[in-house]
Amino acid sequence: MAKIVIFGEILLRLAPEGPLRFAQANCLQATHGGEEANVAVSLANFGHTVNFVSKLPKNEIGQMALGSLRRSGVETSHVTRGGDRIGLYYQERGVSQRPGRTIYDRAGSAFAGAVAKDFKWEKILDGMRWFHFSGITAALSPALAESCEAACKVAKEKGVVISCELNYRKSLWTPEQAAETMGRLCEYADLGIVSDDDAKEVFGIAPADGAHGAEAYEEVAKQLAERFKFSKTAVTLRSLPTECGRHWSAVLYDSGKFHHSRDYQMCVVDDAGSAESFTAGIIHSVLGGTAPQTTVDFAAAASCLKYGIQGEANHVSVEEVRALVKTAAAGAK
Amino acid sequence: MAKIVIFGEILLRLAPEGPLRFAQANCLQATHGGEEANVAVSLANFGHTVNFVSKLPKNEIGQMALGSLRRSGVETSHVTRGGDRIGLYYQERGVSQRPGRTIYDRAGSAFAGAVAKDFKWEKILDGMRWFHFSGITAALSPALAESCEAACKVAKEKGVVISCELNYRKSLWTPEQAAETMGRLCEYADLGIVSDDDAKEVFGIAPADGAHGAEAYEEVAKQLAERFKFSKTAVTLRSLPTECGRHWSAVLYDSGKFHHSRDYQMCVVDDAGSAESFTAGIIHSVLGGTAPQTTVDFAAAASCLKYGIQGEANHVSVEEVRALVKTAAAGAK
Amino acid sequence: MAKIVIFGEILLRLAPEGPLRFAQANCLQATHGGEEANVAVSLANFGHTVNFVSKLPKNEIGQMALGSLRRSGVETSHVTRGGDRIGLYYQERGVSQRPGRTIYDRAGSAFAGAVAKDFKWEKILDGMRWFHFSGITAALSPALAESCEAACKVAKEKGVVISCELNYRKSLWTPEQAAETMGRLCEYADLGIVSDDDAKEVFGIAPADGAHGAEAYEEVAKQLAERFKFSKTAVTLRSLPTECGRHWSAVLYDSGKFHHSRDYQMCVVDDAGSAESFTAGIIHSVLGGTAPQTTVDFAAAASCLKYGIQGEANHVSVEEVRALVKTAAAGAK
Amino acid sequence: MAKIVIFGEILLRLAPEGPLRFAQANCLQATHGGEEANVAVSLANFGHTVNFVSKLPKNEIGQMALGSLRRSGVETSHVTRGGDRIGLYYQERGVSQRPGRTIYDRAGSAFAGAVAKDFKWEKILDGMRWFHFSGITAALSPALAESCEAACKVAKEKGVVISCELNYRKSLWTPEQAAETMGRLCEYADLGIVSDDDAKEVFGIAPADGAHGAEAYEEVAKQLAERFKFSKTAVTLRSLPTECGRHWSAVLYDSGKFHHSRDYQMCVVDDAGSAESFTAGIIHSVLGGTAPQTTVDFAAAASCLKYGIQGEANHVSVEEVRALVKTAAAGAK
Amino acid sequence: MAKIVIFGEILLRLAPEGPLRFAQANCLQATHGGEEANVAVSLANFGHTVNFVSKLPKNEIGQMALGSLRRSGVETSHVTRGGDRIGLYYQERGVSQRPGRTIYDRAGSAFAGAVAKDFKWEKILDGMRWFHFSGITAALSPALAESCEAACKVAKEKGVVISCELNYRKSLWTPEQAAETMGRLCEYADLGIVSDDDAKEVFGIAPADGAHGAEAYEEVAKQLAERFKFSKTAVTLRSLPTECGRHWSAVLYDSGKFHHSRDYQMCVVDDAGSAESFTAGIIHSVLGGTAPQTTVDFAAAASCLKYGIQGEANHVSVEEVRALVKTAAAGAK
Amino acid sequence: MAKIVIFGEILLRLAPEGPLRFAQANCLQATHGGEEANVAVSLANFGHTVNFVSKLPKNEIGQMALGSLRRSGVETSHVTRGGDRIGLYYQERGVSQRPGRTIYDRAGSAFAGAVAKDFKWEKILDGMRWFHFSGITAALSPALAESCEAACKVAKEKGVVISCELNYRKSLWTPEQAAETMGRLCEYADLGIVSDDDAKEVFGIAPADGAHGAEAYEEVAKQLAERFKFSKTAVTLRSLPTECGRHWSAVLYDSGKFHHSRDYQMCVVDDAGSAESFTAGIIHSVLGGTAPQTTVDFAAAASCLKYGIQGEANHVSVEEVRALVKTAAAGAK
Repeated sequence: MAKIVIFGEILLRLAPEGPLRFAQANCLQATHGGEEANVAVSLANFGHTVNFVSKLPKNEIGQMALGSLRRSGVETSHVTRGGDRIGLYYQERGVSQRPGRTIYDRAGSAFAGAVAKDFKWEKILDGMRWFHFSGITAALSPALAESCEAACKVAKEKGVVISCELNYRKSLWTPEQAAETMGRLCEYADLGIVSDDDAKEVFGIAPADGAHGAEAYEEVAKQLAERFKFSKTAVTLRSLPTECGRHWSAVLYDSGKFHHSRDYQMCVVDDAGSAESFTAGIIHSVLGGTAPQTTVDFAAAASCLKYGIQGEANHVSVEEVRALVKTAAAGAK
Repeated sequence: MAKIVIFGEILLRLAPEGPLRFAQANCLQATHGGEEANVAVSLANFGHTVNFVSKLPKNEIGQMALGSLRRSGVETSHVTRGGDRIGLYYQERGVSQRPGRTIYDRAGSAFAGAVAKDFKWEKILDGMRWFHFSGITAALSPALAESCEAACKVAKEKGVVISCELNYRKSLWTPEQAAETMGRLCEYADLGIVSDDDAKEVFGIAPADGAHGAEAYEEVAKQLAERFKFSKTAVTLRSLPTECGRHWSAVLYDSGKFHHSRDYQMCVVDDAGSAESFTAGIIHSVLGGTAPQTTVDFAAAASCLKYGIQGEANHVSVEEVRALVKTAAAGAK
Repeated sequence: MAKIVIFGEILLRLAPEGPLRFAQANCLQATHGGEEANVAVSLANFGHTVNFVSKLPKNEIGQMALGSLRRSGVETSHVTRGGDRIGLYYQERGVSQRPGRTIYDRAGSAFAGAVAKDFKWEKILDGMRWFHFSGITAALSPALAESCEAACKVAKEKGVVISCELNYRKSLWTPEQAAETMGRLCEYADLGIVSDDDAKEVFGIAPADGAHGAEAYEEVAKQLAERFKFSKTAVTLRSLPTECGRHWSAVLYDSGKFHHSRDYQMCVVDDAGSAESFTAGIIHSVLGGTAPQTTVDFAAAASCLKYGIQGEANHVSVEEVRALVKTAAAGAK
Repeated sequence: MAKIVIFGEILLRLAPEGPLRFAQANCLQATHGGEEANVAVSLANFGHTVNFVSKLPKNEIGQMALGSLRRSGVETSHVTRGGDRIGLYYQERGVSQRPGRTIYDRAGSAFAGAVAKDFKWEKILDGMRWFHFSGITAALSPALAESCEAACKVAKEKGVVISCELNYRKSLWTPEQAAETMGRLCEYADLGIVSDDDAKEVFGIAPADGAHGAEAYEEVAKQLAERFKFSKTAVTLRSLPTECGRHWSAVLYDSGKFHHSRDYQMCVVDDAGSAESFTAGIIHSVLGGTAPQTTVDFAAAASCLKYGIQGEANHVSVEEVRALVKTAAAGAK
Repeated sequence: MAKIVIFGEILLRLAPEGPLRFAQANCLQATHGGEEANVAVSLANFGHTVNFVSKLPKNEIGQMALGSLRRSGVETSHVTRGGDRIGLYYQERGVSQRPGRTIYDRAGSAFAGAVAKDFKWEKILDGMRWFHFSGITAALSPALAESCEAACKVAKEKGVVISCELNYRKSLWTPEQAAETMGRLCEYADLGIVSDDDAKEVFGIAPADGAHGAEAYEEVAKQLAERFKFSKTAVTLRSLPTECGRHWSAVLYDSGKFHHSRDYQMCVVDDAGSAESFTAGIIHSVLGGTAPQTTVDFAAAASCLKYGIQGEANHVSVEEVRALVKTAAAGAK
Repeated sequence: MAKIVIFGEILLRLAPEGPLRFAQANCLQATHGGEEANVAVSLANFGHTVNFVSKLPKNEIGQMALGSLRRSGVETSHVTRGGDRIGLYYQERGVSQRPGRTIYDRAGSAFAGAVAKDFKWEKILDGMRWFHFSGITAALSPALAESCEAACKVAKEKGVVISCELNYRKSLWTPEQAAETMGRLCEYADLGIVSDDDAKEVFGIAPADGAHGAEAYEEVAKQLAERFKFSKTAVTLRSLPTECGRHWSAVLYDSGKFHHSRDYQMCVVDDAGSAESFTAGIIHSVLGGTAPQTTVDFAAAASCLKYGIQGEANHVSVEEVRALVKTAAAGAK
C-alpha cells in the first residue's frame, strides 16, 4: 500500500458516555480526533503506511495521543514534541432530533504554536506518494499556513500527490482570511474536497438560486475545479438531524464528468468524523486508480459506516466498505 | 426568571444500564425522578429559580436525592428531613417493540408519611410567582391531599399562579377517590394538564365514540376547561411503542381556541419523564407570556428532546428547545 | 410446565461494549451463548424445567458457564465436567448498515471432545417430555453425532417428543457431511426447524426459481416435512441489515397447512440468538398445544423481542410475548 | 456433600462502586446479601446441596434475587413468591480508618410479612442433614420466630442437625425480646455461634471484668454452651478498623475444650459478610467430622479470605481455604 | 452554621480510573478540584452555608463545575460567568511507592483572566462570618492578587474573620514574587495555614538546622505567627509515599502554646486534597470555638479520612470526623 | 536508545475487574501479556526501539494484540500473520492472603504452531544490538526451540547481545525436557535470568540445605554463571502473599561479585508481570553500561513499581524508576 503523509493537529476528545449530556457526565471518554488525525487513522485501517506530522507536548498527555495513533498503526516518528498543552474539545453525542455539541478548547496548543523548523519536509516527504492537509491546519497560525505551503512546494518537487480539504472553521478565522490563504494553498492541490457550505462561505461558490439537492452541487464542484485546477473535486452533502438518523451523499467531479454517490441514511452512533472518513475513502480510491464512480461509491460507503463507529476515526477495512457498496447496489439498501 | 414552587415527591430511580433487563443487571444506575421533581429540574434548566418542597429521610440516601436536585440548580431549603425511607422504583428501559417496565416500591416513604406541619406554606410561597403540584402528591395520603389544598389556598391569596397535572395512578387510588379529590383541587388551578387516558379514567371525559387522533381530544380539553375553569388546558397524546420509536403530540385549549403541536416521532433513549418535560415547557411559556401556539410548540419540542435524554429529568436549555421548534417548522422534521 | 432436555454446547461469548469495534475494545462483556444454550435459557424464562446436557472443563471458567445457565434457572446436573477448555467466540455487534461479526475459537473444546459415555441418556431422559438438539452438536464430532442419535433412540422409546434445528455451519463441516448425518438424525424428529438458506445448502431444497418472500418458502417447508416426516416444520426468514434495523418472519407448516407470522421490523440491540428465540417459542407453543397460527405468532413475536435484548439468550416472559402478539394484531405494529 | 436447609431473608444490596461514598455515587452495584443467604452461598461454594427457604415478591426484582442464589448453585425451589417488596440495604464500603456504613430499608418486605403456611417444613426438611437459621429471622416478626421454632421441631424429629447464629440486631428488637425468643430457640440448636458483643447484649454473658482478647471469651463460650446445651459453641472476635485493615479470630468450645484460631489481619475489599463466612466454615467442617482445631482453623481462614471478596457472599472453595490454613501454619502468615 | 465566603478557582480534574496510568486510560473521571473549591465543599459537608466566589466560562463545561459545587450544597450565586475556558488538570493516582502525578493545563482560564469588577465584595461579604483564600488565587494574576486584597479590606471593615493558606506553587510564580504578595496579604489574616515546605520556600522560615519531626515545626509556626500577627497558625506535615500509605500530622500554634495532632498513617484511595481537608477542619473548629487541641485533632482526623475518599473534596461529616478522633484517642488507632 | 529484538508469544489476557472473582465477573478486561511481550513493552517505555517477533492470527483478535503492542510504541513489522487463534489466559487478581489465579488456554495458538520460515532472522537481527527470549518460547514446540537456536546463532554472528530468561513452566514441559533444551540454549546467552525456584526445578541448582534468604541464592547465581558462562546472572526472589502485599528482591552476579537489591515490600494492584519488569530493567541497565549495583537497583525498583500497575506490562519511565531508587536509598523506603 502507499506511503502517505498527513499534516495536522491531533486533539484530545472528551465525551460523555453514550447519550449522556455534559450536565450528567461523571466520566469522559478520552479518545482523540482532529480532521487530519482522523484521515490518518482511516487510511491506516485501509492498509496504507501513514506518517502523521504534528507537534505534541512532551508529557504523558501528549504520549496518550501518540499511543492512540500508534494503536491504529499510524507512524508517529515525525511528531515533534514540545509546547505546553494538547488542544482538546468536549463532544456531546447528538441523539434523534438533538444535534451533537462540540466545545473547543484548543487555543495555545503545542501544534498551534509550532514553527517552521519543527517540520523537516525534505526528510518527511522523501519517498512518499501522497500529502494531505486541510484548512484547519492553515487556520491555526500564519506559521502553520506557511508550513503547509512549504510542504506543498517540497511535495510538488518530489512528485508527491497533494490533497486539500477546505474545512472552514469560523471560530478560527474569517472567510476573507480563509479565502486568501486557502485560495493560495489550493493551487497546489491535485484533489480538492469541500463540504456543501464551505465553498459558499469561503469562496462564494454556491448552487444557483433556489437549486438544491445533489445536482445543484455539480456546478459548485465544477467551479472549484476550474478555479484551482483540481484534477478531481469532491463535494459532500450532509442533512440536518432527524429522528431517523442522518443522511450522507457526495458528488465527485473528475475529467469533466459528475459522479454521484448513493444517498445513505444511517442510524447514528457518533456523527463526528464523517467528512474525514469520506476524504480517506477518496484518497484510498484515487491511490488505487479506481474509476471515478467506484471512487465516490467507496468514499460514501466508508462515511456511511463511520456513523456506526464510536469516536471520530473510522475503524473499517477496505473489505467492509466494499461489502457495503455491493450490498447497497443490490438494492438491499 | 420567575420564582416557582413545586410540591411533590422525589424518588430514587434504579435502572439497569442501557438496554439490559433486570435479570441481566449487576449494577443499577441511581438517578432520581418523580413527576414533580422532573418538572422542577426541567424548569431550573430553563433558568428559573425553583424551590422544591418535599420530605426526605435524614440519612445519606436522602442526601443523595438532595444532591441530585441541587446539581441541577433546584433549591432545596424547603425539603423537610425525617421519616424512614426514600420511595424508590426500578425502571427498565423500553427498546423497539418492548415497552419500558416500572416497579414501584414507594409505600412508607418519608414523603408519603408527611404531615401538614411539615410544610409552612405562608413562608414557602412568599414572593413566589407559580405553584405546581400533581395528582400523584394528592394520591399518596389524605394529609398530602390536604397539604395540596392548603398550599392552593395560600397561593390564591398571594396571587401565585397554580398549575395542576392530573396524573392518575391506579396503583395509588381508585378513579372515584381521584375524581373526588382532584375534582376539588383542580378548581384552584389556572392551568390544567392531562394525558389522553387520564381524563377519561378519572372524570369520564373522553373523545366522542369512534373519534381518535389529536382533533378528537379538542373536545376533552374543552370539557375539562369548562368544568374546572382552567384558563389554559393541555392534553398530551402518546403512542404505543413501535420499532421506530415513540410519537408525541399535544393540544392546548386557550381562550376558546385549540392549538395543536407537531406530532414528533423520536428515537428513544429513555421514555420516562415525557409528560413532565411537557408540563415544564407549558409553565415556562405561560410565564414568558408567549402566544398559545408558541406555547404548545415549545412544550412539545421540549418533550421530543426528552426522549433522547437518559434519566427522567429533561436536561435541555430554552435555546435548544427553540432551535428544534425552528428546525421542525422549516420542514426538516 | 414441561420437563425439557436440551443437548449442545455452551460457549463463552466475548463482546466489546455497545457499538465498539474489536480494535477499540479494552474490555469484553463475558456472557454465554451457543444455539442449544440459548434455547434452554429461553425455555426456562418461559417457565419450563429445562435440563441442559453438555460438557464443560472442571475449572472456574467452566463454572462461570454453569452459573450463567443457573442464574436463568436452567438445571445443570447433567453437565459432565472435564476436558481442557471452554469453546468461545468473539462477537462484535452490528450497527446500522454494518453487519455483526463473529470470530469462533471453539476447536478443542471440552464438549467437542466429549465421548458417548459422558451422557447417560437412559437416566437423563427419564420422565422428560421433550428433547431438543441441533445440527451444530452433530457437526462437532462423529462421537457427538452418535450421541445425538443415541439420545433420539432413547427418546423415541420413552415417548419423548424430539425437535431438531438444522443449523448448518460451514466452518464445521461440508454440506455433504451435513446432509448425510442430519438426513439420518432428522428422521427421528417430530418438529423440524430450518432457516431460509440452510435447507438449500444442505438438502438442496429451495424456493422455485425466481420466487422469493415468505410464500416462496412454503414449498421448502412442505418438501422438508415430506422428506423427514416432521409433524411440524418451521422455516425462518431473515433480512440483510439496513439502517432501519432488521426484519424477521417465519412460516410454519402443520398438518398440510401453511401459517405465516407477521413480518416484524426491529431496532437492534443485539442480533445474535434470533433463531434460537424462535425455536424456543415454537417448542413452548407446541408443548402448550396451541393452534398453529398462534404457535408461529408466538414464536415470531419472541424473536422480535430478542432483537432488543443484549446477549444471545432471550430474556422475555410468556406474558411479554403474548402482549406483543396482541399489540401487533391490533395494528399498532 | 451434605443436604442443607437455610431459612432466612435475602436482601438486595445497593453499594457505590469501589471506595465511593453515597454522595458521590451515580450507580449502585446490585448484589444480594443477608446473613442466611450468605451462609447458603458459601456452603454451596463448598460443594454442598443447599436449599434456601424464604419469601420473595413475584416480580423481576424478586427474580433477580433468585438468580443471584442460583448463579452460585443454591437451590430455590422452596422460596415462596408473594408480598410487596424485597428488603434492601445501602452499603458503603469502609476504607482505612473509615468504617463501613449500612442503611437498612427492609421494613415491609415479603419475607418479613411471611406467615406459617408459607413454609412446609415436613416437606422441606425431608431427607436433609442440616438446618440453619439466625436471630435475624426470628427478629423480623413473631410469625417468623414461630416458623423458626416449627422448623426446629420438625428438624429434631427427623434427626436434622440444627445450628443457630445469635446475630442480635438492635434495630429489629430489644435485648429483652431477643433474650426471650432466642433463649427459647437456642435450646433446639446443636451448634451455637455468637459474636463477641452479642452474647453480652442479649444474654448478659461477657468476659470477666477487665479481661479482653481471645482468652477472655473462653468463659463466654462455656457459659453459652452450658446454658443452651450446645454441643459446639463458637465465638467470633472482630477488631475496629485501622489503616492496616481488619483483624479476625475465633474461639470454638467443643467437648469441654477451647480451640483458638489464628488471628488474621487482612487488607479489606469488603468487610461485610465475615460472620457468615465463618458460620459456613464451621458448618462445613462439622459436617465433615473434622477435629475441633481443624474446624476453627478452617472457619477462620474462610473468613480471612472473605475480606478480599467483593459483595457479601464468600466465593471461595474448600481447596482455597485449606491452602490458606496450610500457608498460615507454615508461618508465612 | 456559619456563613462562609471562599474565593478561588475551581478546576476540572481528569483522572484515569482506579490505579490506571495515563498511558492505559481510555476514559477519564471528571470531577472538580482546586484548593479553594475543596475547602468549600468540605465546609458545606460540615453543615455550613458556603458561598464560592469565582469565574467560569458560560458554557456547559462551566456548568458542570457549578453542578459539582451545588451537588455538595455549595452556593454559587456569586460565580461570574465569562471567559474562554475552564482550567483543568490531569491527575494520576499514586500507588504504593509510586507518587501521584499532576499535569496542569490551567493557563488562560476564565478565573485567571478575571478582573476586579467581576467580584462585588461589598455585596458578597455582607452578613458573612468568614472569608478564606489562598496563595494560589493570588499567584494567578496581579488582578487576582488585588482582588484578594480588596476582599480582605472589605472583610476587615465588616468584621469578617480572614484565613489564608500560603499554598506556594512554583509553576505559578517565583518565591520572591510570592513573598512580596503573600507577605502583604497575610497581614490581613487572622488564621494562617502553611505546609512544612512552603514557609521555608517563600519566607525562608525553616526548622533549626538538623531538626526534624513535628517539634521542629513549632518554631516555624511561632515565627510565622509573630511576623504576620496570626491569632492562630497551623503547620501541616506530610510524608513521602511508602508501600504502607501516607502519614499526616499537624501542629497548631495558638495564644503562645503548641498543640500537636496525632500522626495518622493511612491506606490511600486518593492523596489529593489533604491540605484542604485540614484547612476546612481548622476553619470549622475555630468557628465552633473549640479548644486549640480539639481544633487540631479535628482537622487532622478530617485529613486522615480524606485519604480514603476518591476525588479531591472531603466528603465526610462532622460526626464522622469526631468518631475518628474518639476512636484514635481510645488507642485503637 | 538501543535496537532490541524480542522473540516470544503475546497472549490475550482476560481478567475480571478489580478484585472480582471469576464467578462474579460479567465482563473481562482485555489486555495482553506473555513474558516476552511484557519485556518488550517495558523496554519501549524505557525509550528503546523494540521489535517484537511473533505470530498472530490474521483476524481482528490478532489485530487487537498488535494494537496493544503498538500503543506502547513496540514495533510489529516482524509479526507474521496466520494460524487459527491467539493464545489466551484468564487471570484473577490476588488480594491480601488470596493468591492470584491463572488459567491458561494457549494450546493450538498461532505462535505455538509457527514454523522456522515464519521468522527471517538474518533480516530481523540486522543492525540490532540485543536479542531476548525465554524458556516459554522454547517450551511451546520443538520448532520454536529450534527457532530460538537459529536466532541465537545469527545473533552471535552479528555480535548481537543475547539474554535468556529460564522461565520454567511445568504445564508446558517436564524438567528433563527443559533441562535438555534450555541447557543448550543458555549456552548462547550473555545474560541469564532465573527465578528462585526455576534453577532448582530445571537444573537442580539450589541453595545449600537449610539456607534461605537472598544470600543463599548467591551460590545459585554463581553455579549458573559457571555452567553457562553467563557474563551476568540475575536471580529474583519472591515471597508468598501476605495481608501486607508482596516482597521482591534480587541478586546479580557479575564479574565474580554479588550485588543485592533492596528488598521491596509493596501494596499490590496486579502481581503479574513482575519477573518481566525486572528483566527489562536489567537489559536496560546493561545496555546503558551502568555499574552492577546500579543495574540491580534499577531492575528491582522497576519491579517494585510494576506491582502498582494494572495489567502485565510495566508502564513506567526510566525517570520514575530512578526516582524510586533515589528515594529508597534516602531511607524513606
